[in-house]
Amino acid sequence: MASTETAGHSEAGKLVDKAATPSDIRGPAERAASSRSFAAADVVLRFLLFASGVVAVVVMVTSKQTELIPIPIPPFLIPRPAKFNQSPAFIYFVAALSVAGLYGAITTLISLFALCKPASYPRLLSHFVIFDVLLFGIVAAATGTAGGVGYIGLKGNSHVQWRKICDIYGEFCRHIGASIAVSLFGSVVLALLVLLSIYSLSKRIPKHSY
Amino acid sequence: MASTETAGHSEAGKLVDKAATPSDIRGPAERAASSRSFAAADVVLRFLLFASGVVAVVVMVTSKQTELIPIPIPPFLIPRPAKFNQSPAFIYFVAALSVAGLYGAITTLISLFALCKPASYPRLLSHFVIFDVLLFGIVAAATGTAGGVGYIGLKGNSHVQWRKICDIYGEFCRHIGASIAVSLFGSVVLALLVLLSIYSLSKRIPKHSY
Repeated sequence: MASTETAGHSEAGKLVDKAATPSDIRGPAERAASSRSFAAADVVLRFLLFASGVVAVVVMVTSKQTELIPIPIPPFLIPRPAKFNQSPAFIYFVAALSVAGLYGAITTLISLFALCKPASYPRLLSHFVIFDVLLFGIVAAATGTAGGVGYIGLKGNSHVQWRKICDIYGEFCRHIGASIAVSLFGSVVLALLVLLSIYSLSKRIPKHSY
Repeated sequence: MASTETAGHSEAGKLVDKAATPSDIRGPAERAASSRSFAAADVVLRFLLFASGVVAVVVMVTSKQTELIPIPIPPFLIPRPAKFNQSPAFIYFVAALSVAGLYGAITTLISLFALCKPASYPRLLSHFVIFDVLLFGIVAAATGTAGGVGYIGLKGNSHVQWRKICDIYGEFCRHIGASIAVSLFGSVVLALLVLLSIYSLSKRIPKHSY
């Protein structure tokens, strides 16, 4: 009982046992103002998610580049295109980021509606946060997948004789790299959305509960 | 005002304006029991995270396989090993899953302590959930990265002449595949941990707040 930590826990225990008084609970005006500021941050983050989803998909889809590749027998130059849909990893990436962009667009509109009616915000939040968590996992995995394959394209792997392709398809690789960077930004936005939801929920717990 | 949805929202607004009465708030005994069941689920999930982290890392690290590969000029057979550390994607995977396993071990112990003192659980929860979200992103990205590179090893990519290696290094590929599957399970456990935290937090919000 002499240490600070133990004293803190026993105090918390006592507080839980106390009956709640109306003065512990924050007023409706303060709660509404807090809801409004959370809803505003939510709208901005969801719009950023929509924007990053659209930008990542557009940059990835427009990455096609055709180069003349020499083949040894007979000595010809043949045009060989590099497209995102030649790799399953990039197809998954486009699918995941498309879903993220669409989800961002829909939830931005719903969050804008919640901004007009702050009382409905916590109810909306509890529905969104599950999808936010799932989509965060999907977008993070898509970023990792495209990043892993893109890195082989950039550096190659001498152990298994996978040669690098970015020395030939420079423009294609710049598109892939930019798209992965934007998708990483989208992942961070989704993480912030989940953390904002958690912070907003924890703000609504009365202090006597701790 | 005639639609059900509008009526529901105006009712919610009225409820927020109402002053809270002590009968709205759940009793300390009920709250403690609820905390205890959440803490028990938390301990089980965190132990599963620890186990999946350790299994994924051990299976990945022990994947070394040496095969005799024919080289054309001069016609010799030379031993060529396949190891996880020949690919940066698998090194990142091992690093991420090691961190997840270590984090799982530490937080299992702390959660066990919280199980003995349910009053301290919500306070612990609010500290863990931020790291849970960040680690979820890291583990999901690691699973995606290793999965993307592993898929090229399994199927190859004819467009860029990256040949498949799983026809030669079968044992190595089985290890990689098993490790990725366990890591996917770890990602699901982390997602459940985040959702459990959110559900636990939302349970502590008094009903009159909605």
